[in-house]
Amino acid sequence: MALTAKGRATRQRIVEGAAAHLRSDDPAGVTLDDIRAITGTSKGQIFHYFPDGKEELFLAVARYEADRVLDDQQPHLGALTSWPAWERWRDSVVARYRAQGRSCPLGALMSQVGSTPGATEVVSTLVGQWEAHIRLGIAEMQAAGLVRAGVDAGRTAAAFIAGIQGGVQLLRTTGSVGHLEAALDTLIDHLRG
Amino acid sequence: MALTAKGRATRQRIVEGAAAHLRSDDPAGVTLDDIRAITGTSKGQIFHYFPDGKEELFLAVARYEADRVLDDQQPHLGALTSWPAWERWRDSVVARYRAQGRSCPLGALMSQVGSTPGATEVVSTLVGQWEAHIRLGIAEMQAAGLVRAGVDAGRTAAAFIAGIQGGVQLLRTTGSVGHLEAALDTLIDHLRG
Repeated sequence: MALTAKGRATRQRIVEGAAAHLRSDDPAGVTLDDIRAITGTSKGQIFHYFPDGKEELFLAVARYEADRVLDDQQPHLGALTSWPAWERWRDSVVARYRAQGRSCPLGALMSQVGSTPGATEVVSTLVGQWEAHIRLGIAEMQAAGLVRAGVDAGRTAAAFIAGIQGGVQLLRTTGSVGHLEAALDTLIDHLRG
Repeated sequence: MALTAKGRATRQRIVEGAAAHLRSDDPAGVTLDDIRAITGTSKGQIFHYFPDGKEELFLAVARYEADRVLDDQQPHLGALTSWPAWERWRDSVVARYRAQGRSCPLGALMSQVGSTPGATEVVSTLVGQWEAHIRLGIAEMQAAGLVRAGVDAGRTAAAFIAGIQGGVQLLRTTGSVGHLEAALDTLIDHLRG
């Protein structure tokens, strides 16, 4: 659907309003009527922008939250070109998830949407972009002679993604960022050699 | 509740029957009546062994599944005393989760039980025992002079747990064990130095 600039703004207002509400409440209990009321839109407007209803809107919110995951790590994630840059990135990831604590907006949405192709695509895109940034950072460190050439950049980037994902998952259970920090610090140590 | 040997056997039969059924079906739709029918027990028996009903039974099944997670890694996990032992353990973890694929009995149960103190305790106990085995393995490798003394055994064990947890989580989304393998191989490389 091609939207006008005004249409895009309205759609974005609905997504951001829904995201804020879903962050403060259990997504399982949130209805389209709640979102309509909060964002001051009519039923007709909601279905104009999200013809498939709640699932489509929730997916749009998940995509918005996924973009925020990456935005929150910038500008560090996009310029992993020195050891201080890696440390700043590491700190920004830990700070972001420490602030988020046990709640995880994207995780809560995902367990609502279920494993539909759309939900899988949101997660795959996020993971792919995140991993590509880290892989590029490792390659740039290698080009600068700061990381030994023998390190497999792609495999190590995948290990970072697994460690972060698991650290965040364990934070949701334990309330502690300890595993997240251990994963990041151990893998950065590995790069330092 | 102190159970006789016969009582313990009956309770175990209910837990194992419920576990088999919950592995083949979505836990959300399973009722106590289903479990009663499958295990050939009466309502009275179920409530004798699980006075708090479904949640208590599901927690007992989660504990049983958590024990299996560790059992499936034995004898390797308990004797990480040489590089071939680490590789055999790594292969057993990957094979276990490759066979399990996108389904995760423990994860599915956990999303049913929610973040109750009982559920948190099951996960914490599993994570704690798993991590302790890996930490001991690293310490033994250090004592044998196979891993450098500068490696922080506790922190590295926590990184393994985060990487495995995240790798399994990503397997549930992507259907691939790639992230799990990347995490295990990178961290073992780190130990090898």
